[in-house]
Amino acid sequence: MTEYKAFRVELADKIARVVINRPEKINAMDAAFWTEIIDIFNWVDATDDVRVVVLSGAGEHFSSGIDLQLLASVGSQLGSDVGRNAEQLRRKILSLQASFNAVDNCRKPVLAAIQGYCLGGAIDLISACDMRYSTVDAKFSIKEIDMGMAADVGTLQRLPRIIGDGMMRELAFTGRTIRGDEARSIGLVNRTYADQQALMEGVLELARDIASKSPIAIRGTKEMIRYMRDHRVDDGLEYIATWNAAMLQSADIKVAIAAHMSKQKPDFAD
Amino acid sequence: MTEYKAFRVELADKIARVVINRPEKINAMDAAFWTEIIDIFNWVDATDDVRVVVLSGAGEHFSSGIDLQLLASVGSQLGSDVGRNAEQLRRKILSLQASFNAVDNCRKPVLAAIQGYCLGGAIDLISACDMRYSTVDAKFSIKEIDMGMAADVGTLQRLPRIIGDGMMRELAFTGRTIRGDEARSIGLVNRTYADQQALMEGVLELARDIASKSPIAIRGTKEMIRYMRDHRVDDGLEYIATWNAAMLQSADIKVAIAAHMSKQKPDFAD
Amino acid sequence: MTEYKAFRVELADKIARVVINRPEKINAMDAAFWTEIIDIFNWVDATDDVRVVVLSGAGEHFSSGIDLQLLASVGSQLGSDVGRNAEQLRRKILSLQASFNAVDNCRKPVLAAIQGYCLGGAIDLISACDMRYSTVDAKFSIKEIDMGMAADVGTLQRLPRIIGDGMMRELAFTGRTIRGDEARSIGLVNRTYADQQALMEGVLELARDIASKSPIAIRGTKEMIRYMRDHRVDDGLEYIATWNAAMLQSADIKVAIAAHMSKQKPDFAD
Amino acid sequence: MTEYKAFRVELADKIARVVINRPEKINAMDAAFWTEIIDIFNWVDATDDVRVVVLSGAGEHFSSGIDLQLLASVGSQLGSDVGRNAEQLRRKILSLQASFNAVDNCRKPVLAAIQGYCLGGAIDLISACDMRYSTVDAKFSIKEIDMGMAADVGTLQRLPRIIGDGMMRELAFTGRTIRGDEARSIGLVNRTYADQQALMEGVLELARDIASKSPIAIRGTKEMIRYMRDHRVDDGLEYIATWNAAMLQSADIKVAIAAHMSKQKPDFAD
Amino acid sequence: MTEYKAFRVELADKIARVVINRPEKINAMDAAFWTEIIDIFNWVDATDDVRVVVLSGAGEHFSSGIDLQLLASVGSQLGSDVGRNAEQLRRKILSLQASFNAVDNCRKPVLAAIQGYCLGGAIDLISACDMRYSTVDAKFSIKEIDMGMAADVGTLQRLPRIIGDGMMRELAFTGRTIRGDEARSIGLVNRTYADQQALMEGVLELARDIASKSPIAIRGTKEMIRYMRDHRVDDGLEYIATWNAAMLQSADIKVAIAAHMSKQKPDFAD
Amino acid sequence: MTEYKAFRVELADKIARVVINRPEKINAMDAAFWTEIIDIFNWVDATDDVRVVVLSGAGEHFSSGIDLQLLASVGSQLGSDVGRNAEQLRRKILSLQASFNAVDNCRKPVLAAIQGYCLGGAIDLISACDMRYSTVDAKFSIKEIDMGMAADVGTLQRLPRIIGDGMMRELAFTGRTIRGDEARSIGLVNRTYADQQALMEGVLELARDIASKSPIAIRGTKEMIRYMRDHRVDDGLEYIATWNAAMLQSADIKVAIAAHMSKQKPDFAD
Repeated sequence: MTEYKAFRVELADKIARVVINRPEKINAMDAAFWTEIIDIFNWVDATDDVRVVVLSGAGEHFSSGIDLQLLASVGSQLGSDVGRNAEQLRRKILSLQASFNAVDNCRKPVLAAIQGYCLGGAIDLISACDMRYSTVDAKFSIKEIDMGMAADVGTLQRLPRIIGDGMMRELAFTGRTIRGDEARSIGLVNRTYADQQALMEGVLELARDIASKSPIAIRGTKEMIRYMRDHRVDDGLEYIATWNAAMLQSADIKVAIAAHMSKQKPDFAD
Repeated sequence: MTEYKAFRVELADKIARVVINRPEKINAMDAAFWTEIIDIFNWVDATDDVRVVVLSGAGEHFSSGIDLQLLASVGSQLGSDVGRNAEQLRRKILSLQASFNAVDNCRKPVLAAIQGYCLGGAIDLISACDMRYSTVDAKFSIKEIDMGMAADVGTLQRLPRIIGDGMMRELAFTGRTIRGDEARSIGLVNRTYADQQALMEGVLELARDIASKSPIAIRGTKEMIRYMRDHRVDDGLEYIATWNAAMLQSADIKVAIAAHMSKQKPDFAD
Repeated sequence: MTEYKAFRVELADKIARVVINRPEKINAMDAAFWTEIIDIFNWVDATDDVRVVVLSGAGEHFSSGIDLQLLASVGSQLGSDVGRNAEQLRRKILSLQASFNAVDNCRKPVLAAIQGYCLGGAIDLISACDMRYSTVDAKFSIKEIDMGMAADVGTLQRLPRIIGDGMMRELAFTGRTIRGDEARSIGLVNRTYADQQALMEGVLELARDIASKSPIAIRGTKEMIRYMRDHRVDDGLEYIATWNAAMLQSADIKVAIAAHMSKQKPDFAD
Repeated sequence: MTEYKAFRVELADKIARVVINRPEKINAMDAAFWTEIIDIFNWVDATDDVRVVVLSGAGEHFSSGIDLQLLASVGSQLGSDVGRNAEQLRRKILSLQASFNAVDNCRKPVLAAIQGYCLGGAIDLISACDMRYSTVDAKFSIKEIDMGMAADVGTLQRLPRIIGDGMMRELAFTGRTIRGDEARSIGLVNRTYADQQALMEGVLELARDIASKSPIAIRGTKEMIRYMRDHRVDDGLEYIATWNAAMLQSADIKVAIAAHMSKQKPDFAD
Repeated sequence: MTEYKAFRVELADKIARVVINRPEKINAMDAAFWTEIIDIFNWVDATDDVRVVVLSGAGEHFSSGIDLQLLASVGSQLGSDVGRNAEQLRRKILSLQASFNAVDNCRKPVLAAIQGYCLGGAIDLISACDMRYSTVDAKFSIKEIDMGMAADVGTLQRLPRIIGDGMMRELAFTGRTIRGDEARSIGLVNRTYADQQALMEGVLELARDIASKSPIAIRGTKEMIRYMRDHRVDDGLEYIATWNAAMLQSADIKVAIAAHMSKQKPDFAD
Repeated sequence: MTEYKAFRVELADKIARVVINRPEKINAMDAAFWTEIIDIFNWVDATDDVRVVVLSGAGEHFSSGIDLQLLASVGSQLGSDVGRNAEQLRRKILSLQASFNAVDNCRKPVLAAIQGYCLGGAIDLISACDMRYSTVDAKFSIKEIDMGMAADVGTLQRLPRIIGDGMMRELAFTGRTIRGDEARSIGLVNRTYADQQALMEGVLELARDIASKSPIAIRGTKEMIRYMRDHRVDDGLEYIATWNAAMLQSADIKVAIAAHMSKQKPDFAD
């Protein structure tokens, strides 16, 4: 397993555990974070043995968002021509976005387990995951508004598809902190747990369940839901028909039906 | 009234009651089901006397989804060339999808009344209805994942517009069974009822209410909501303006306003 | 401050208070209403001193919707050629829609405070606002169905993005009246208050909070959420990158960070 | 081969020849025409032995467009309520459009061979074909404007994708008649021929060439070009990747490469 | 007729002649130009007596594009904060675009008659017209590139739909001047004329022809072609069906058919 | 300058010359080609000193397309499960597409200079360039159809935007070889030259002209045209307004205007 500076990564039982690992900095997202996350999710995507990912933060908090030093260093690289600065900033933002696109585009489901603070860039990150789970006292805030800027690495783009439009605007305009239970009631997280240990046990159980399914079927399912976020129903129907035209010729369906008939657990190839 | 093998269809008081009628097979969707449902909804669409549809399942369950024998027979018709098989499968899937498109595209509102099991293909079916109501102990599951396949007749395309994105993925990846009350809390059903009798009474009352409105206005309303599932707000505004340019010249508005003034129930032509 | 016939408008502490002011007519939307609202929101948009808008209704009710006399006068102007009538009606509807588009397109957040009746056209109006708050006993109804017509000034276009699809259809087909608490549970309003005074205090507190943020950041945030209602995630990411390429060169970020460091309240230029 | 009233259909050498066969009426499109064309193209789509279609008109002309008696009969069925008439007309137009959608959606390439008059509805028809060829003295006109109506069965929707936007508008606004050579210079036809015999020989030679290719490859190619008329480049790239994921496992590629190596003509299964 | 500073406007025989009237300044587009053009096209849109517009330039040239003084004055209004400048510039550009959107959205066909120079902003303008005609020696250039900027009032948005993509890029990257004959060969103009007098005679003859058609049919036709520039074929088919549902109930079709039968010129109401 | 196996790359006078350099293999696209082209265009994108690219082929031909050995090796890596093969092929195709996306997405204009054969994959490649120029006797063919497959690295996606729809289909269905002059008449190339030397001189002259313009303006122009290939006119107008909000604050406009006034050549910073 590769060593990372901002992360700790483990693989067991087909589940990759990806842990943001700067607890002394409240897991703030520094330069290493933004490049390593791409490598990690490319590895997840390419490794047949990984069927599902659990993303979490080491220590008491999930993450406080982008490291302010990184933000400052971007500003310090600007020159005197507004137009050339704009080009440089635009490319920098696109490059930061690419880090979370790697999570969003990953073919395997990504489950976020969240405790303590989940602020600013951390909201952008969990918006790019498939599902979110938290402790009941986790604290969420779209902090960018208090930095004098509109969030630009995914929160404003992906979160409106996840929570209601009206509350989305309130949270984005005010940066108000909400806790786990309110997060659950607006659909930001699927379920809350009493404490961090119960959270990790609950999420790992879900991950094990998903890892036991046909990987072909899981990947097709994720691709279709991802596709529907941005496409029409008729296009989606045509797309799954084209997709399944190949996938229904896979052995997994026979494995599944045989297991169903014999009332045994199916065993799918990677 | 035409006789059907997989359905029982009745028309009274402008309400068409469409009942999946294979209770001894848990209303599994066999070959007859997939062709008859198109005929039924074409008839609904073409018959002025039908203003609203109530769709339900005979016996203790709504439906267990696609008949496994039908699935097996599709597989048995494949040949040796992967490409030609793919073309054949693609067309077969498109043809199954057309059955539920007939429900979705029907100009009259379709209310699903659900008790007992509602599994796999049955979720695809109710996703194509306008509204869903269930008993409190109904059981819903996106069962396709356990057949080793991605759902391909509408669940993954239509359900994300109805329930929240995060829970959508959890249910689709795990096939977890949820009951009526959880279904209501995530917006899958609008309301739950204590038992099957209360369910049918409640849904029929709603149906009668809808049947008493201007059919011109109901159809325009349904068309606009259907359209907005896939289109932009500005396109939607232009579309309703073009639509109402004709419809506001209908007599129904005068009938409605006259009834409003005289505090009587309006009586609209079919 | 300009004088209006259908509205009362005040500006204080960077908050514009826009009050529909025909309480004796339950704030029904007459001809003056539809033209004045455009002027008001153009003024809001152009006036740097306005950072946020609170929209409410004078008296016991928010609004009963379009004035029936206005509706009748539209009908009375029609001639004998169906085609030319259709053109005239289409343009009239587009022109009414433009009044609420002015609210939707306004660059500053618009908070609706709702008590009493909120019927028909009033639902179209609040659907064009950013957020909605109400008393617990406010009464909402998509009344157009009982006028024999499909709602055509925004409800059917904007509301499905705000509340769940299934309940959307039920409310639009039946015109059923719901109260504040149900409105909150389906996401139509963000929060309910015990009475009108608590409502206004609560909404004004929110407005003050928003008014204290960087206006550059608030406007960017609103534009991005508005954009995502109708665009793809990848387009949205490219758009915010282009937008922030200029905006991150603003002084507001430095002001925000300096305030953050010194633990003081930032003071942003208009 | 089925007998048709408005058409003559032949199948030889994998080429279906579909001939509009009412020469005494300048091949005007009567009621039989509109229903039979759907049956014919469904048969084309379902018959493996058909690889390409040549569509032409019997006698001196291709077609004068919709039969005026049919148009008149539509008008005579209208009642007194403008709204209900509008619904009826809308459905009638959608049903006529479906006849040409059957041509457009057909999986096999359709080549139109055009001589003499090609007017009104005949332009709608050839706009739904894959390619168009004509005699040098063929006469084309978007005749609907002189009937006091906007063309509504496909010309205004499909032709702007085929010819230039500026000339499109001139022809649609004026109904000006253009001849084969001008049609070729604006891209309406691919090639002109001196007379009807040369036209048919040229088009049949093209058809034979297409019929000799891999039918899997031809169908994939047509589907992709059809798809790109309405979709983004990135969506198109993803779609062909999904499509070819199955099709590249077909035997046709091995057949093609083997033939290429041995410099012989490949022989593809239907 | 209203008096304008930058234009001369005449109405005769249902044809509005709109002439840019600053020949001493090569018809450069000054502040008056940008506001008056909106008023003029609103008047065109609202005046039933206007059925078609001919747009031209007084003197030897069509127009040299935006007035450099106007450009300079925009720059001189900027302050010191890059972010606030960006907001101001963005709104200024949107406001200039609105001037040519008024031409594009006008319900009546607009024919541009072009002689001499047609540079920079003048290309943006003619791209918003329906059709373009020129003298054989007219000179076209996308001049913005030589001002150090990307064209932002419509050329880059509308012209790619009119001329070929490859040549579009060459002209936009180089600002190369092309003459009338090359403009015709790439589809930028529909036809060239030997000199200015022949040009005006030719364009007016076309305009008279269009003015003699059913105004209902002309407007529907323009709306459909405009719509197809940005929409899918299936959406376009649904839109024209909804549109014609009303318009086919107009008297114009009967007038047209009666005239057709009696071989007389039809006379349509405005 | 990096050394490449399949390419030769030079940089002089702000023009990058990228030459496919396997003349002994007719510049067939081997494994090295597909990875190196990404590196090259990333370098182009990131290197301020490069303002424009000229892409050509060494020797007598531009390129014969994908190397058949590469195609064979893809097939040889497939296993026995159709579903897993499909996933592997899908990802392989997406990865090949990424190579030409790097050309398409490059911020600097790319001019293709084509002589001799330009077959199969080479058509996909030049479709991703900005402009195309060729010798009069160059030979173009969409060769994939004769390999028994639908072209899947960009021809079917990008070429329909460049040449007419009707001729697009003929060329894609038949694989017919066309020469430079026909290529020019359908818009595939912008201009033809008598021989290879005249071609290179002509293209380099164009490249020099483009290199002399403001790089900020060139990049904005390219981005806008690229954007319009897939977006609506109204979205495009909003996008350029947002883009230019920053770019109009660049010094290049002042440089350009000053040069214009003094009638001297402007000198823009990289």
